[in-house]
Amino acid sequence: MQPLLVIGNKNYSSWSLRPWLLLKAFGVPFEERRLALGSEEFRREIARFSPSGRVPVLHHQGRVIWDSLAIVEYANEVFLDGRGWPTDLDARALARSASAEMHSGFTDLRTQLPMNCGRDPSTGVYRWDANAQRDIDRVQQLWRELRGRAGSGEFLCGAFGIVDAMFAPVAVRFRGYGVALDDTARAYCDAVEALPAMREWREGAAEESERLAKYDNVGQ
Amino acid sequence: MQPLLVIGNKNYSSWSLRPWLLLKAFGVPFEERRLALGSEEFRREIARFSPSGRVPVLHHQGRVIWDSLAIVEYANEVFLDGRGWPTDLDARALARSASAEMHSGFTDLRTQLPMNCGRDPSTGVYRWDANAQRDIDRVQQLWRELRGRAGSGEFLCGAFGIVDAMFAPVAVRFRGYGVALDDTARAYCDAVEALPAMREWREGAAEESERLAKYDNVGQ
Repeated sequence: MQPLLVIGNKNYSSWSLRPWLLLKAFGVPFEERRLALGSEEFRREIARFSPSGRVPVLHHQGRVIWDSLAIVEYANEVFLDGRGWPTDLDARALARSASAEMHSGFTDLRTQLPMNCGRDPSTGVYRWDANAQRDIDRVQQLWRELRGRAGSGEFLCGAFGIVDAMFAPVAVRFRGYGVALDDTARAYCDAVEALPAMREWREGAAEESERLAKYDNVGQ
Repeated sequence: MQPLLVIGNKNYSSWSLRPWLLLKAFGVPFEERRLALGSEEFRREIARFSPSGRVPVLHHQGRVIWDSLAIVEYANEVFLDGRGWPTDLDARALARSASAEMHSGFTDLRTQLPMNCGRDPSTGVYRWDANAQRDIDRVQQLWRELRGRAGSGEFLCGAFGIVDAMFAPVAVRFRGYGVALDDTARAYCDAVEALPAMREWREGAAEESERLAKYDNVGQ
């Protein structure tokens, strides 16, 4: 049986995007179940799927794996035969460090610039404080370091992998809020957006917005 | 050359305790460098050691691995030959999920009940809000689930491993703040405290307090 990945809204659930993108980009077939964050359905259904009450959560062969980082490590072992991380130990240690820093950190960036796939930076100026800017600077410093070491390829360790899935929502934020980027970051965000899997996620997000707009006067 | 683990204060740095305890408990020889959080030395030295400006950080054979979860994954591969996680895939998926939930979550527990190895619950009543209590309840629910599945042994997946290193600072918090615990949690916290490696950490924390007390009128 195919694994089942339970996710939140494609527009807003940055944690859901991470494992979803990894599975899609590597061509792992899976079933998807979307529970809109904050909805009545979410409140009613989430306990059936997720012991932590949060998305994303993966169900596979009777196993329940929750939290994005645990899901990508599981996927790496079970579906990707280790291809999610770089083969080289140096690069793998770096990729895991960067992924873990993303997983536990960048709180100001995450709270002040929440992921919103539908946001167009031309809609207006958006402001954040010095702490969020420090997070933005640190992300770009990290990307420069990783790209500098990788040399070839377009992604953080050369070819697309888990570390890119972890940072993909940051690329969405940078674009949506019109964050000023250095050359490395601009090229990297373009590479993330050009992934067929990323385009598919964005299409799903746009459909969500259209569906909601039918019930929303703002959308009329 | 032995790996070098740079850590913060043993009294307060809960993130440092995690990889330190794992390496000690598995008998991995390593050099330790302590930088007191908030000190002039920390400000002066941290950039030399840590690209994220945070502790813990591990240096090994020219590699720099920062963030607790990346360090324990690296240690698992390089020093422990995989023994950090359970061999069984079901148990490993659970252990990784619980560890990742700890790594990115329980914010209210972490901020309202900061780790303080020197705190004696008899010093006075300590209060926290309903959000922190929800975190405390969730931790105990998780521990019951893991212990229920493990059956044998005293630790979350039977024998001591990474998941226990990740939750050890929570055991310290529960004891220090006199948190009401269910039977499973009480027995588990006792098992963590009884580890020779945990006792060694606490001795280091006590020495820190004595050393500081010399320069502090409160300690006279």
